[in-house]
Amino acid sequence: MDYSQYFSAALGRLHDERRYRVFADLERIAGRFPHATWHSPSGPRNVVIWCSNDYLGMGQHPKVVGAMVETATRVGTGAGGTRNIAGTHHPLVQLEAELADLHGKEAALLFTSGYVSNQTGIATLAKLIPDCLILSDALNHNSMIEGVRQSGCERQIWRHNDLAHLEQLLIAAGPDRPKLIACESLYSMDGDVAPLSAICDLAERYKAMTYVDEVHAVGMYGPRGGGIAERDGVMHRIDILEGTLAKAFGCLGGYIAAKGEIIDAVRSYAPGFIFTTALPPPICSAATAAIRHLKSSSWERERHQDRAARVKSILNAAGLPVMANDTHIVPLFVGDPEKCKQVSDLLLEEHGIYIQPINYPTVAKGTERLRITPSPYHDDGLIDRLAEALLQVWERLGLALHKKPLAAE
Amino acid sequence: MDYSQYFSAALGRLHDERRYRVFADLERIAGRFPHATWHSPSGPRNVVIWCSNDYLGMGQHPKVVGAMVETATRVGTGAGGTRNIAGTHHPLVQLEAELADLHGKEAALLFTSGYVSNQTGIATLAKLIPDCLILSDALNHNSMIEGVRQSGCERQIWRHNDLAHLEQLLIAAGPDRPKLIACESLYSMDGDVAPLSAICDLAERYKAMTYVDEVHAVGMYGPRGGGIAERDGVMHRIDILEGTLAKAFGCLGGYIAAKGEIIDAVRSYAPGFIFTTALPPPICSAATAAIRHLKSSSWERERHQDRAARVKSILNAAGLPVMANDTHIVPLFVGDPEKCKQVSDLLLEEHGIYIQPINYPTVAKGTERLRITPSPYHDDGLIDRLAEALLQVWERLGLALHKKPLAAE
Ligand SMILES: Cc1ncc(COP(=O)(O)O)c(C=O)c1O
Ligand SMILES: Cc1ncc(COP(=O)(O)O)c(C=O)c1O
Repeated sequence: MDYSQYFSAALGRLHDERRYRVFADLERIAGRFPHATWHSPSGPRNVVIWCSNDYLGMGQHPKVVGAMVETATRVGTGAGGTRNIAGTHHPLVQLEAELADLHGKEAALLFTSGYVSNQTGIATLAKLIPDCLILSDALNHNSMIEGVRQSGCERQIWRHNDLAHLEQLLIAAGPDRPKLIACESLYSMDGDVAPLSAICDLAERYKAMTYVDEVHAVGMYGPRGGGIAERDGVMHRIDILEGTLAKAFGCLGGYIAAKGEIIDAVRSYAPGFIFTTALPPPICSAATAAIRHLKSSSWERERHQDRAARVKSILNAAGLPVMANDTHIVPLFVGDPEKCKQVSDLLLEEHGIYIQPINYPTVAKGTERLRITPSPYHDDGLIDRLAEALLQVWERLGLALHKKPLAAE
Repeated sequence: MDYSQYFSAALGRLHDERRYRVFADLERIAGRFPHATWHSPSGPRNVVIWCSNDYLGMGQHPKVVGAMVETATRVGTGAGGTRNIAGTHHPLVQLEAELADLHGKEAALLFTSGYVSNQTGIATLAKLIPDCLILSDALNHNSMIEGVRQSGCERQIWRHNDLAHLEQLLIAAGPDRPKLIACESLYSMDGDVAPLSAICDLAERYKAMTYVDEVHAVGMYGPRGGGIAERDGVMHRIDILEGTLAKAFGCLGGYIAAKGEIIDAVRSYAPGFIFTTALPPPICSAATAAIRHLKSSSWERERHQDRAARVKSILNAAGLPVMANDTHIVPLFVGDPEKCKQVSDLLLEEHGIYIQPINYPTVAKGTERLRITPSPYHDDGLIDRLAEALLQVWERLGLALHKKPLAAE
């Protein structure tokens, strides 16, 4: 039996479709974010990272690094067990309290990642509700899709952010059927935002529970970094909020926050929570430091929005095809996987700028793009150099530019 | 619609069956392992941990802590992205190389946990092989079971470590059907070991692939800590080896090691790998330090076995019902969930000894037990105090003692 054929065929398919991925080996330099060392095939080179999801640079913040160092030195590097068997440690208990407070909920529950929190969280919640119908936004993240699938529950998909369609499905389900609405608050590839308040209206009218993934919003929106739901004043109307510690909080891990009994039930039944080692104490302390800092400091959030607005306006003025939205994500349309990869390669090799191409399956075919994520630490000079580099690459590859708006700034 | 009823009912079932779990809030003290602070309801108390899966105490080893501190300070706390989007960093690339070398394989692939490596690893591997039949040991860990389930492939279960049954199933499947044998090398609740060499014989005879979970063996067995497969000289005969960084290596994360094309295929297709933030640089550096140390130092392994043997012999001599095995796990039979919890509570409250009760669903009903895991740092005095405390608790609760063997040492 030649098993090798199956794996080489699977890889061949990716090469044929031009979506075989090569990972860039990077090394960030704390204190100099977004600068990093790229371990290229021909040796180390300095680059500027323009696509990190450490959106606010908190992964290098002195308070966050300091908390990790302090806890590692005092407690050690690992949790040493599952939550039940010797793995529940004090920094983790404190972090869960911090997260519950952040979202104004009775309790929070930590998982090893945002991925796992969605996967095992949604699957467990839905399984505990007999005959639950899950209503899932069409653009939900893979981790939510897997959670829905593993719940074994019936699922219906509503067209992305389409309230009329969601309402139709809610009505069709009838008043007596338990229903769980699952969506994201901020969709990371387009940067568009869900109408959370209107979704809550529908949920209340038709008696559905709500589960909202705030992975790309926590830390960055709302007066204390509670996310879009906090900004929109609807945190208390959403049953389960889910987030990550790995993006704006600069660490690792994921969580859900909700009423105490919901958290207790997931804690008690979710296999992806029960049968795995708890997050390390130094990670938990670092995350707590990041959350606390961002609860009181608005500088990062304001500067973040300012930088994103500036990048958009400068790239737009240069005629580059920025895909419009109201958030910190700056998607630049390319529309072809090969070209998208070439843009990215040229930026890295000739301009020392690292922006990973975003191709299928992360986005739909034909909508391939660069996804630029400005941070508070991308200064005007870096933005200007980004615009120049993009223009050169655009020209070199014969990509289309928009007509420049008159009032280019 | 009253959703609350579902969650309270789910919790009620656990209380009724006496398997509602309460997590102890612990804080280890680096440099003083296995001593820790227990944040009890009535305030902090000193305790000795006897059930950690940081089996070798590497989570507090100066080299491991030092590596975490150095990397956190130099690079920052988080990876800042998925592997594809800015998240592949140098410490992670080095760790994967270290793991491939540890297992004598062409390549290795990191996941956020051992749980995720089994779940998404097995599911992805099996899906890539058309009509794959998975032959799964009856006592496989929940993470393997979930991986098998998510593969959507046909699954047959062979009786635990029963080679004749496995052979029967292999024959019945016929020579032309692709087959994947999945098992653990060391089963953590009983401490028994799989006959890997004989399993490899069968796999070769009947042309099956082999997937072995070495989570409770890596670092602890084999001349370089490669696990039971290394100890038994069969590493090269196993197609996919899976392990964790969260137990003997004292950190967090999981991995598989295999031929390059297998790793490349899983890397390219596994959703639980693709759509999640990569492990933080400080975690990867710490794990690399632990692995490197244990590749050359045998002190921890020898002392670990010595301590486990001593605990077994002293508890046996005292007439306590040690469940026999040849490994570092010391299961102590109780056989009743309520009693098991009481033993654990009394040990903690009256003797400052922390050993979590192991009840259903982690083990079968009627086989409830304490699971004692001696480390290299549990000295003779601690072992004697453990034996005395257990005897007192056994007496207090009226639990049965064996007749003491004559040559009690
Ligand atoms: C919407 C969404 N949810 C969840 C996740 C997973 O979070 P984590 O990286 O913490 O696993 C991601 C991406 O990583 C995401 O984009
Ligand atoms: C056999 C086995 N495999 C996998 C795992 C999961 O490993 P991790 O804790 O790294 O998620 C465990 C327990 O945690 C286990 O006992």
